[in-house]
Amino acid sequence: MDAALAAALAGPRGANPLVGAVILSPEGERLATGYHRGAGTAHAEADAILEARRQGIDTSGTTMVVTLEPCNHVGRTGPCAQAIIEAGIAKVIYAVDDPHDPAAGGARTLREAGVEVRSGLALAESLDLNREWFDAVASKRPFVTLHIAQTLDSRIAAADGSSQWISSPESLADNHGLRRLIDAILVGTGTVLIDDPRLTARTPDGELSERQPLRAVMGLRDVPEDAAVRAADGRFVHLPTRDPVEALSRLFDEGVRHVMVEGGSSILSTFLAAELVDELIIYLAPTLLGSGTPALNDLGITTLADAQHWSWDEAGGGAVQTLGNDLRLHLRSTRTAASTTKNSIPRREAAEYVTGGH
Amino acid sequence: MDAALAAALAGPRGANPLVGAVILSPEGERLATGYHRGAGTAHAEADAILEARRQGIDTSGTTMVVTLEPCNHVGRTGPCAQAIIEAGIAKVIYAVDDPHDPAAGGARTLREAGVEVRSGLALAESLDLNREWFDAVASKRPFVTLHIAQTLDSRIAAADGSSQWISSPESLADNHGLRRLIDAILVGTGTVLIDDPRLTARTPDGELSERQPLRAVMGLRDVPEDAAVRAADGRFVHLPTRDPVEALSRLFDEGVRHVMVEGGSSILSTFLAAELVDELIIYLAPTLLGSGTPALNDLGITTLADAQHWSWDEAGGGAVQTLGNDLRLHLRSTRTAASTTKNSIPRREAAEYVTGGH
Repeated sequence: MDAALAAALAGPRGANPLVGAVILSPEGERLATGYHRGAGTAHAEADAILEARRQGIDTSGTTMVVTLEPCNHVGRTGPCAQAIIEAGIAKVIYAVDDPHDPAAGGARTLREAGVEVRSGLALAESLDLNREWFDAVASKRPFVTLHIAQTLDSRIAAADGSSQWISSPESLADNHGLRRLIDAILVGTGTVLIDDPRLTARTPDGELSERQPLRAVMGLRDVPEDAAVRAADGRFVHLPTRDPVEALSRLFDEGVRHVMVEGGSSILSTFLAAELVDELIIYLAPTLLGSGTPALNDLGITTLADAQHWSWDEAGGGAVQTLGNDLRLHLRSTRTAASTTKNSIPRREAAEYVTGGH
Repeated sequence: MDAALAAALAGPRGANPLVGAVILSPEGERLATGYHRGAGTAHAEADAILEARRQGIDTSGTTMVVTLEPCNHVGRTGPCAQAIIEAGIAKVIYAVDDPHDPAAGGARTLREAGVEVRSGLALAESLDLNREWFDAVASKRPFVTLHIAQTLDSRIAAADGSSQWISSPESLADNHGLRRLIDAILVGTGTVLIDDPRLTARTPDGELSERQPLRAVMGLRDVPEDAAVRAADGRFVHLPTRDPVEALSRLFDEGVRHVMVEGGSSILSTFLAAELVDELIIYLAPTLLGSGTPALNDLGITTLADAQHWSWDEAGGGAVQTLGNDLRLHLRSTRTAASTTKNSIPRREAAEYVTGGH
């Protein structure tokens, strides 16, 4: 399971959880490893089975160790339970039950097909691996990534409002790569009125990417009829609220499972103050401004002891990466699920998800 | 010379330049490498000779390649020219003349002892390696390190003034390690009045280090008689000025060749705005405050195009290091010496330093 957990970390956080899978021979030898590369790509189980096929390995009679219960639903990718049965895998050991609908999970399908199934191995580590995702699923809200492009002194615009571009071209390309993966991008009405951004996902050449996020603008002010964000593709929504919980609820109802909040300061601070941010991505340019717009304003914190603490996140490429001249910092929330929303999965309840299987 | 330049980067910036030295056999084989580990330690040439001795290598008849002209003076360490002569080294190739007093440099001593001397190899790279140091020497001012301990949103204190400790214990220990190496530490009167810091170099156990920096407080307000910074060891000075050039000049006259500016915001910003900072060390804690004291205030910059650009500095352990939970960011100035002070060594003049030697 350690190898499966390590493999899972290679994937990106977002609408889907990080999952790793390892196929073992009956003698316990590691034959193949797989992980989930994000929404729309093969699940970890299918990835491991494909890897075994690429190597010409016969998977019949093998054991699969996986960090999450294999899925049973046909989404953008086929159901993993079926793929495991077809691969002739004899035994599946997983850590955590699929939180969407435990009763309809893949474990039952596997057992009915004669596969031996056990669960609960490395439960705590596997829950922790995706604690923000479990929180989002239980709260029926999208997974929230906060994006900040700032100077060393945490300014996102100079005194005259100029902000294009604080980041290096490599950071901009990375940001547009994220835009292709997420379901929605969210900014405040202030950002639209000041910068009039397009908020589309574009290639380094400026071409529109095939997959475009929903463009959401939050706030009580009107979005001008000629705002670039409206475009003509119907992928625009105005959320006339200042309440981040309400904004996320509206987006969830629109089918959004991963939203990236891009600014400005008020929106960034609102989501952080409400402890609704799962993942923080900061592009840090080696520049100083001294004045201008700070990335954040009031978070309701008055003393150092109450500062928000974040964890460096090694998932999806590492906690600190170099992008051109910039550093890309990747952090995850340290809040515990139970402390933030009433609808979170308490650890005890999560443990009860685990079916014995033996 | 590439190997000597690479070796030089292992040392710390400060009162002395980064210097690397390589000893080659008559056939050009690399026998030993040395570098300078900072003020008070062996120079690169002596370090390379010691390394050769440790390996039992006979240095007579060898060639030394070094990034800076070997010194001729007896300071805290013996003169390198003499050490080279005694080691029987037959030929010395160096890049840049010692800027202190070219006429009295080690090259002449070496030649007089029959050592073949050539200079000017990789001149541009070697000048660039220590461009801030050459600038400080030519301007007769100390080398300036700026130290900032901040949150991800660049706050150095919370709204209620609390700032102890924003950084991890590992960052504090690193900072106290720097305090042992520098000649002086500088803060503003505001910091003394608010925080009453001791500004001593201490071990992680809280014991005073043997070597203590001069404690300098800058500003027009009085330093209270009972301020901790005064202590009783005579290592305190009040600089009643708001002009950073004047403050540095006073410190230089006191024999200070490396000063670390520690804050608060006004002093940090004053030195940055005056482009008098050679090296920037930022301890970045993975925390957010949203309000409180920003690390910097006005630098006289109003638009993004005028932002100060800094270079990641790999010297002395790397541009990005992990210290406990913090990142330690290390950057160097991108200003060119000639653009900042009239007393800088212009590149042309520096080139003229180079004696032909052949």
